[in-house]
Amino acid sequence: MAAVQPWNVVAARLIDVATGRSPADLVVRGGRWVNVHSREVLPDQDVAIASGRFAYVGPDASHTIGEATRVIEADGAYMVPGLCDGHMHVESGMVTVTEFVRAVLPHGTTTMFVDPHEIANVLGLKGVRLMHDEAMAMPANVFVQMPSCVPSAPGLETAGAEIGPADVAEAMAWPNIVGLGEVMNFPGVASGDEKMLGEIAETMAVHKTVGGHYASADLGRMFHGYVAGGPADDHEGTRLEDAIARVRQGMRAMLRLGSAWYDVASQIRAVTELGLDPRGFILCTDDSHSGTIVNEGHMNRVVRHAIAQGCNPLVAIQMATINTASHFGMERELGSIAPGRRADMILTTDLPSLPVDTVIARGEVVAEEGTLTIDIPAYRYPDFALNSVRLGRELRAMDFDIPAPAGANEVTARVIGVVENQAPTKALERTLAVSDGLVVSDVAQDVCQIALVERHRATGEVANGLVSGFGYNVPCAVASTVAHDSHHMIVVGTDKADMAQAANRVAEVGGGIVVISRGRELALVELPIAGLMSNERAEVVAEKADRMVEAMRACGCTLNNAYMQHSLLALVVIPELRISDKGLVDVTRFEMTDLFV
Amino acid sequence: MAAVQPWNVVAARLIDVATGRSPADLVVRGGRWVNVHSREVLPDQDVAIASGRFAYVGPDASHTIGEATRVIEADGAYMVPGLCDGHMHVESGMVTVTEFVRAVLPHGTTTMFVDPHEIANVLGLKGVRLMHDEAMAMPANVFVQMPSCVPSAPGLETAGAEIGPADVAEAMAWPNIVGLGEVMNFPGVASGDEKMLGEIAETMAVHKTVGGHYASADLGRMFHGYVAGGPADDHEGTRLEDAIARVRQGMRAMLRLGSAWYDVASQIRAVTELGLDPRGFILCTDDSHSGTIVNEGHMNRVVRHAIAQGCNPLVAIQMATINTASHFGMERELGSIAPGRRADMILTTDLPSLPVDTVIARGEVVAEEGTLTIDIPAYRYPDFALNSVRLGRELRAMDFDIPAPAGANEVTARVIGVVENQAPTKALERTLAVSDGLVVSDVAQDVCQIALVERHRATGEVANGLVSGFGYNVPCAVASTVAHDSHHMIVVGTDKADMAQAANRVAEVGGGIVVISRGRELALVELPIAGLMSNERAEVVAEKADRMVEAMRACGCTLNNAYMQHSLLALVVIPELRISDKGLVDVTRFEMTDLFV
Repeated sequence: MAAVQPWNVVAARLIDVATGRSPADLVVRGGRWVNVHSREVLPDQDVAIASGRFAYVGPDASHTIGEATRVIEADGAYMVPGLCDGHMHVESGMVTVTEFVRAVLPHGTTTMFVDPHEIANVLGLKGVRLMHDEAMAMPANVFVQMPSCVPSAPGLETAGAEIGPADVAEAMAWPNIVGLGEVMNFPGVASGDEKMLGEIAETMAVHKTVGGHYASADLGRMFHGYVAGGPADDHEGTRLEDAIARVRQGMRAMLRLGSAWYDVASQIRAVTELGLDPRGFILCTDDSHSGTIVNEGHMNRVVRHAIAQGCNPLVAIQMATINTASHFGMERELGSIAPGRRADMILTTDLPSLPVDTVIARGEVVAEEGTLTIDIPAYRYPDFALNSVRLGRELRAMDFDIPAPAGANEVTARVIGVVENQAPTKALERTLAVSDGLVVSDVAQDVCQIALVERHRATGEVANGLVSGFGYNVPCAVASTVAHDSHHMIVVGTDKADMAQAANRVAEVGGGIVVISRGRELALVELPIAGLMSNERAEVVAEKADRMVEAMRACGCTLNNAYMQHSLLALVVIPELRISDKGLVDVTRFEMTDLFV
Repeated sequence: MAAVQPWNVVAARLIDVATGRSPADLVVRGGRWVNVHSREVLPDQDVAIASGRFAYVGPDASHTIGEATRVIEADGAYMVPGLCDGHMHVESGMVTVTEFVRAVLPHGTTTMFVDPHEIANVLGLKGVRLMHDEAMAMPANVFVQMPSCVPSAPGLETAGAEIGPADVAEAMAWPNIVGLGEVMNFPGVASGDEKMLGEIAETMAVHKTVGGHYASADLGRMFHGYVAGGPADDHEGTRLEDAIARVRQGMRAMLRLGSAWYDVASQIRAVTELGLDPRGFILCTDDSHSGTIVNEGHMNRVVRHAIAQGCNPLVAIQMATINTASHFGMERELGSIAPGRRADMILTTDLPSLPVDTVIARGEVVAEEGTLTIDIPAYRYPDFALNSVRLGRELRAMDFDIPAPAGANEVTARVIGVVENQAPTKALERTLAVSDGLVVSDVAQDVCQIALVERHRATGEVANGLVSGFGYNVPCAVASTVAHDSHHMIVVGTDKADMAQAANRVAEVGGGIVVISRGRELALVELPIAGLMSNERAEVVAEKADRMVEAMRACGCTLNNAYMQHSLLALVVIPELRISDKGLVDVTRFEMTDLFV
C-alpha cells in the first residue's frame, strides 16, 4: 500500500481506465471538484482512481466502473486535494514520523515536507537517514529536507553531530530528499560563508529546493544578500512587509501557523488587501505539538484560519496544495485532483469550516470522520537511536554547585531572563548571596538554576547558570533532552538534589522530560528515540505532556508555554543570553561570556 | 558571452554584489519593475546584474556601482522580464537557430522552447543534435524539445529518419533537452500505443516536460485518455472550451499566435471573462515565418495581441514569462526579474503597445531600438546537413507522366482539393482527358499536377497525383523541399518540363523553393540546411519568400498562403486527401488509395 508507482509506469493503465477499457479501483461519484488549477468549484463531478493515481476526473466516470470497483457517493461533498504542509519538523510533535502521520491523516494532511533538524543534531546523517527511510514507508507523502545548519552555532556549542557540504551532497542522492532544510545561518549566507554556500550549491546542482529561514526584520542589504544566495522560500516572516518582500524577490512566502507561531494573519493581507498574486504564498505549520494536532488539527487548522482572515477559500486551499507542490517541482505528482497525480483527496461538506469527513491517500480511504481506518505499522528504530542519552555517570547534587569567586559574600551574576510569549531572552543581572563559597539561587527574586548537561559523548560535563522567569517557588527540577538545537539536557530547578534526580531519571528512560519535586516524580514524558520522540500515539504523548505542564504549574510556574521556553534556553542563535555545553553565551555578540559580572 | 554559469557557481559573487562588497557589471536605474511574482508594477527600482544574472533588485542599487559598472538610466521605463516562447519550430522561419535568434532578440524574445521536428524528419537524431548544439551556442536561451513523432504517419510515408523510445532516452541526457516535443499522435496515446507511451515514459522518468498536441475537438474519452497519458501542455486548442478543459485537467493551455494561427482571442476569454486562474495559460507562436518576424514581431506581438483582447497587461506578461518558466521547471532560472535568475530583460515605455527599446540577455545589452547590437557568429552546419537533397538522378519531363489505365479515353481521378485558409483538404473527383495514354491536367478545371519526389535516399522515385485550388493558368511549376512532415520534395505544376526543371534546380541548390515558368526561373529561396533552412538573414529570406509568393501569383495563383498550402500537401495526418512518397493517401481512413476512381 505504501509505495506508489511513478506515473510513467502506470500510464497505460490510467489511459485504459480513462477511456473505459479497464475498470478503476475506486470511483468517487457526484462531488464538487475543487479545481486548484483553474480555481473553480465544479459541481456534479466524478473521480476515477487506479494504481494509486487519478485516472479520470470529469462529469461522468460510469464507464470506469467495473465489478470490483469500489464506489463512494460524494453526495455533493467538496472534493479537495489532500493538504500539504510546506515545512515542518516531525520532532516538534515529540512522536515518530509514523505516529505523526497517523495523527494528521484524519485531518486531511496527505503530504509533508519535513526537516529532521533535531535528530540531525543528535545523530547526524545517520539520524536523518532513519527518518528518511521511515518517511518512505508511510502511506502518505512525507518528503525530507536535508538539515543544513548542524550545529546551529558552530563554536558556541557542541552538537551530537556535524553536517557539511559533503553530507548534503550524499543526501541529495537519496530517493526521498527534496532539498535543503531551512538555511538558518542567514548572516553566514549574506557574508558568503563557505560551508553554507557549499551546502546550497550541492542542492542547487541537482535542481532541488533550498529552504530558507531569514529570522530578521532587516530587509536591507543582508536580506538582499541572503536572497542572492539561493534560498527559495522563507517561513520566518512575521509582518506584512516580510511576506511582500519575499514574494517580490521571487521567494515563496511560507505563512506559518504552528502551535506557537501565528504568522498567517498579518502576512496574508498581502493577498487579501493588497491583491498580490497568491501563487507565491504557501501555508505551513513548522512546529506542531501533539496536543495541538490532537485537539485542533493540522493543515486543516491552517487553511481554516487563512479563510477566517478573509482569504478566498479556493485561494487558501491552493496555498496548501498546488502552490506547495509547484514549489517543490511536484506539480505533476501531487497537489491537485487531476489525471496522473497521486490520488490524495479529502471529502468535506463545507470549505470555510473544513470538516474532514473522508481522507483518501494514494487511492486508499485512510480516514473517515476523524478516525484512521488503516493500520500503519511502527517503524523500528535501531539501538543507536534508542540509546542516545549518555551522561557517562550518575549525577549528584554537587554537580550543580556554582562556586562563587574566592572570598565573595555575594555576587552579581548574569541571569537568563525568560520573556513571556517571546523567543528572545533578556540578559539580566542579579545580586545573589554566597554560602559556603557557593552561589545561592533565590526563589524570592525568581532566580533559579539552569544546567546544560552534556549527553552526546558521555563527557560527564555540566555547565551551570542562572535563569529567571519561570516562577518556581518550591524545591523542584525539570529536565529535558529536548534542548534546541544541540539537544543536550537542560535542567532547571530550585533544588540541586531534585536536579540530579531529574537528570538521572531522564537518562534512565533514554530521554524525555521529567518534573521532580522534593524527590517525587510528578510527571514523565518518555522520548526514547534520540531523546526527542516517542513511538507512542500522539494522544498519549499529548496527555503526558499535559501532565508535565500541570506539574510545572504545581511547582509555581505560571509562564505561558513554559516547557517550550525551557527547551529553547540552549538555542544559542536567538538573543540575548543562553546557555550551551560550553557555558553562558551572549547571543547579541555571538560569544561566550562569564557568569559573573 | 554565450554561456551562462549556474546560479550556484556564481552565488558568492551575486551575494557580494547584493550586499555591496563587489561592484555589479551592469546597473539599470530608475525603472518600473514589472514583478511577475507579485503581479505588481513597482516604480523607482534599480537592478544590478553580475555574471549574467540578477544580483539585486530593489529601491537603490547605488552600493553595487563601481568604477567599471555600466549604468543605464531607465528613466521610468518598464523593466519587463525577457519574453519566452513556450513552443515553436525554428524551421518555420526557414532560417537557422542563429538567424532566428538574431531576428527575434530585438523584439524582446530571450527564451525559446523549440521543437526541431522538421530537421528530425530529414536527418533524425543527428539533425536534432545539430540544432541542439547550435541552440546552446546562442546568447539567448534556446531550449530543445526532443521530437516525438518521426515519421508523423508510420506506414503511410517514409521520412528521412525514424525516432523511437531509445532515441528519446538518449536525447534526454543531452544538456539542452527540456522535454519531449508535441506528442501529435493523440489517437495513439489514447489507445495505449507502445512507442508513444515509451517515449513519454523515457521523458517522465527524468522529470522532463512532455509537450502535447491534441488536435481534435473531441473532449470526451479520447481526450481524457490523452491527458492520463502524461502530456503536460497543449497548443492545439482553438475554442474557449478547449482552453478550459486543458487547464482543468492540469495541463497548460498554450495559446498560439503564429503567422497563420490565431488561437489567442477565443481562448483567453477563459481568463478575461470567466476568471480562471491565469497561471495555467502560456503564450506561444508555434510557427512564425520570417516575414512575420521581420514585419510584425515575435512574442511581443503575441503579448500585445493578448492585451488587446482585454487581458490585464501584467497577466499577459506572466503568460509569456514566469508561467512558461514554471511549466518547464525553470522558474528559478529565468522568467522574472529577481535575484539569481538569468538577467534577461526588456525596457519599454508602454505595456499595452510594448515597444521594445532595449533588450538585455544574460546581462548583456543585445538590442536597442529594434536593432541587434551584438554579433552572433554563424553556426557551421556539417556537410551531411548541407547535402540532404538526394534525387539520385536528373529528372526529366517524362518522370511526371501519369499513365491512364490501358485503353481509357478519359479518367475519373481523385484530386486533392485545397481549401482556402484551411489546413484540411477535400477529396475531389474530376474527369480528365487522356492523350497518348497519359492523363492530361486541365487548367480550365484548375486541376494541375502534383508530384512527391523522394529526396532522402536517392531512390529516384516520383509519386504523381493531381491537385486543384491553386489557380495556376500558365505553364509553370513550383518545387519545395519544405514538405511537411517527411520533407521530401513537392512539385506542383501545369507543365512537366517546368516541373522537371524546378525539381532539378531545387536539388542543385541543396534544397529550397523555386518557381519556374516556361523554362524561366521566376523566384528562388535557397534552403541548403536540410532543405529546410537558410543561413542568410531573416530579412533576406523574407524578401526572397515575398518574391516567391509574387511569382506564384504571376502564374495565376490567387490563394491565400499559397506556399503554406503547397508545403502541407504531403502532411498525411490531416484529412482528407494527401500525397506521400508511397502515393495518394486517404487521410480520413489512414490508408493508401488509388489515383483513379
